[in-house]
Amino acid sequence: MMHVELITIGAEILLGQAVNSNAAWLGSELSALGWPVARQTTVPDTAPAVEKSLEEALERADLVITTGGLGPTSDDLTKAAAARLFSISMREDPVLLDRIKTIFAERRSPFPPGAGVQALVPEGAEVLPNDWGTAPGLVLRSRPGQFQERSNMLILLPGPPRELRPIFACHVAPLLKRTFGTETAWSRRVFRTTGLGESFLEQAISDALPPLLEQGLDVGYCARPGEVDLRVMAQTSKAELLFGEFERVLRNRVGPYIYSDQNETLEEVVIQLLRHQRQSLVLAESCTGGYLAHRITNVPGASDVFLQGFVVYSNAAKQQLLGVSDNTLSRHGSVSEGAAREMAEGGRQRSGATCGVSITGIAGPGGGSVEKPVGTVFIGIALPSGTQVFQFCNAFDRLTFKEVTSQQALDLLRRGLKGLPWA
Amino acid sequence: MMHVELITIGAEILLGQAVNSNAAWLGSELSALGWPVARQTTVPDTAPAVEKSLEEALERADLVITTGGLGPTSDDLTKAAAARLFSISMREDPVLLDRIKTIFAERRSPFPPGAGVQALVPEGAEVLPNDWGTAPGLVLRSRPGQFQERSNMLILLPGPPRELRPIFACHVAPLLKRTFGTETAWSRRVFRTTGLGESFLEQAISDALPPLLEQGLDVGYCARPGEVDLRVMAQTSKAELLFGEFERVLRNRVGPYIYSDQNETLEEVVIQLLRHQRQSLVLAESCTGGYLAHRITNVPGASDVFLQGFVVYSNAAKQQLLGVSDNTLSRHGSVSEGAAREMAEGGRQRSGATCGVSITGIAGPGGGSVEKPVGTVFIGIALPSGTQVFQFCNAFDRLTFKEVTSQQALDLLRRGLKGLPWA
Repeated sequence: MMHVELITIGAEILLGQAVNSNAAWLGSELSALGWPVARQTTVPDTAPAVEKSLEEALERADLVITTGGLGPTSDDLTKAAAARLFSISMREDPVLLDRIKTIFAERRSPFPPGAGVQALVPEGAEVLPNDWGTAPGLVLRSRPGQFQERSNMLILLPGPPRELRPIFACHVAPLLKRTFGTETAWSRRVFRTTGLGESFLEQAISDALPPLLEQGLDVGYCARPGEVDLRVMAQTSKAELLFGEFERVLRNRVGPYIYSDQNETLEEVVIQLLRHQRQSLVLAESCTGGYLAHRITNVPGASDVFLQGFVVYSNAAKQQLLGVSDNTLSRHGSVSEGAAREMAEGGRQRSGATCGVSITGIAGPGGGSVEKPVGTVFIGIALPSGTQVFQFCNAFDRLTFKEVTSQQALDLLRRGLKGLPWA
Repeated sequence: MMHVELITIGAEILLGQAVNSNAAWLGSELSALGWPVARQTTVPDTAPAVEKSLEEALERADLVITTGGLGPTSDDLTKAAAARLFSISMREDPVLLDRIKTIFAERRSPFPPGAGVQALVPEGAEVLPNDWGTAPGLVLRSRPGQFQERSNMLILLPGPPRELRPIFACHVAPLLKRTFGTETAWSRRVFRTTGLGESFLEQAISDALPPLLEQGLDVGYCARPGEVDLRVMAQTSKAELLFGEFERVLRNRVGPYIYSDQNETLEEVVIQLLRHQRQSLVLAESCTGGYLAHRITNVPGASDVFLQGFVVYSNAAKQQLLGVSDNTLSRHGSVSEGAAREMAEGGRQRSGATCGVSITGIAGPGGGSVEKPVGTVFIGIALPSGTQVFQFCNAFDRLTFKEVTSQQALDLLRRGLKGLPWA
């Protein structure tokens, strides 16, 4: 198996000022290409730390990819560290310098002092053009014997995701395919489930797994708020057969809990169902505060089926915008089966959408009581066939509450649209 | 400086099925305590990879913290790897086993096969109780000479954030303070800015920095969509003086761009301003699809000032819910200065809120034209003193578009509320 390592350069990641989304994105792309990452390291932007981590990785790996430290400020040190390690000097690339000057001219921005540093490249490095920013990607190849017996490859990429991602897609992926070929590749498939814990998933399939594992299937679990991914991997030559057998077992045991085998998000699946059924959607959210609308509108083309959303924090808004009744609010409160029902149905009637989803609950940290503790939530699903309301207790921090609750709402809508049992 | 390393265990992180939020959270907590993380490594959940990374880190660090691999499934290997490395055996802890059985009984769930594995602990390890899940944290101390001349510490924590975080806060932080004391600590301060690129920020302060750097101030930049953090660090004994001098320079040069020096988010700052000024807020979002409402409602207590939000994707919804005029829509379209103005003012009038914020634009990938390319967006700010509309071109991917645009809207509201110049 080809050994790939990622190095993330930037104290902000170590200090927790930012999550390492680049490592996740590259990890996903590389495993989709068939070369899963074997190790990822984050180091601060100091010259000794960068150089040491590069050297260690180059002594182990066939391919090392770094992100970050290619910008114009004083803590951008990656190129110089790589040049020292490869014992090569730096040169100014006149084409790059012109391009950087043009970018600032087009933005009508003055050329900042120090921005020219981004036109320096190590001698002999292949330059990967950056059409989305100022710092190019760079490829260095070691001589046999320099770090390992055979030559290996170091690729330096800029840190900003909107530059890193297109450079990888346009330049790095084709380069890797040319260089490493597909015979080294592994295949992967992910089954996304919601509604069952990972222990129960494992238990449901455990008796059928051993023969598949013996034949080289690798199975992993990844639990996130409100969902568990089952991930299978195998050498590409054996993958079709093993994946097919695994899927047969999985669908047989826990079919209704699987919402995608295509790496889709639950919101993508729901939007597709709505589109295929020529349905439309209205959302009425209280405690999730727009998060469900945000998830829905993350899907390109959501506007085909999503008509409108209400974020109704106050009781007045629930009454005025959705027609929740005085009687329900005074007798049962805004967090109740009746309020959820009236919100879903009111949104559906007033918007003309065929499907209404409502969420009302107590996200916390404050606002709980003995009868309705923090985490209590009612989800209403109003479909042409009728309205159902479901109660959950999602006692989590505020963001996890939003994630889990929006997941439950989307899954209930999925089950309703597909005519699956509710749980 | 104390050397701290984090090891994340889990193929799902390397495969990009999840971002490494645990490393970010622990990094932030540890640097707030005064011990910034020097290196973070992610390895897959295979025994050789876990054991090798533990050994390497223990040979370098005073403190190593791992997350993940303590659960009940077959890919949970961290405890066994640590026990082998420390040459100690495992024992079943009867108190832990009872607790795990009680948890499943309380959930009225059957006791899953394999769940008892979580009651095994390495001999001599200190057990950190997990009141939020089934896998406890564990602390191992090496003998002098085992990995380094002096004894060092390994702490194993479970991967799920809602277990990891309270175990760290309740048990790990006090343990570290007792063990390592405060004389080893560094101080940190972060100034959060929005509206200026990092090159320009650096340029604005560059002439005043060298004497501060000579005295031991460490300055770093972290750029995210729509904002740049300036981070200063120094040994705690010198920090007050150096931070004070740095802040004086920074406020003098770029004061209006700084929105927090207290690690607050921009939405927290805006909610506080609204609360102090006894104002209230309504949101009318088209292309950001509820993301601004989501950000606002992430702040506990947002309901004090946030009355309601509209996610108005369709023209019909813009007219019906906010009173956008036929004339404006037919002459200028829904992405226009006039539509933004009418959305902000309409929301304000209909909800009774004192402040209305509207966003209408083209998030892409489709929907652009020559006059209004993808990324075109109008933001309306309706305050008691009048309404202003601002135009931007945020040509990014869909999520970055939402992040940058919501940031601009929040910053415009902040500037409006504080009476700062608009840009």
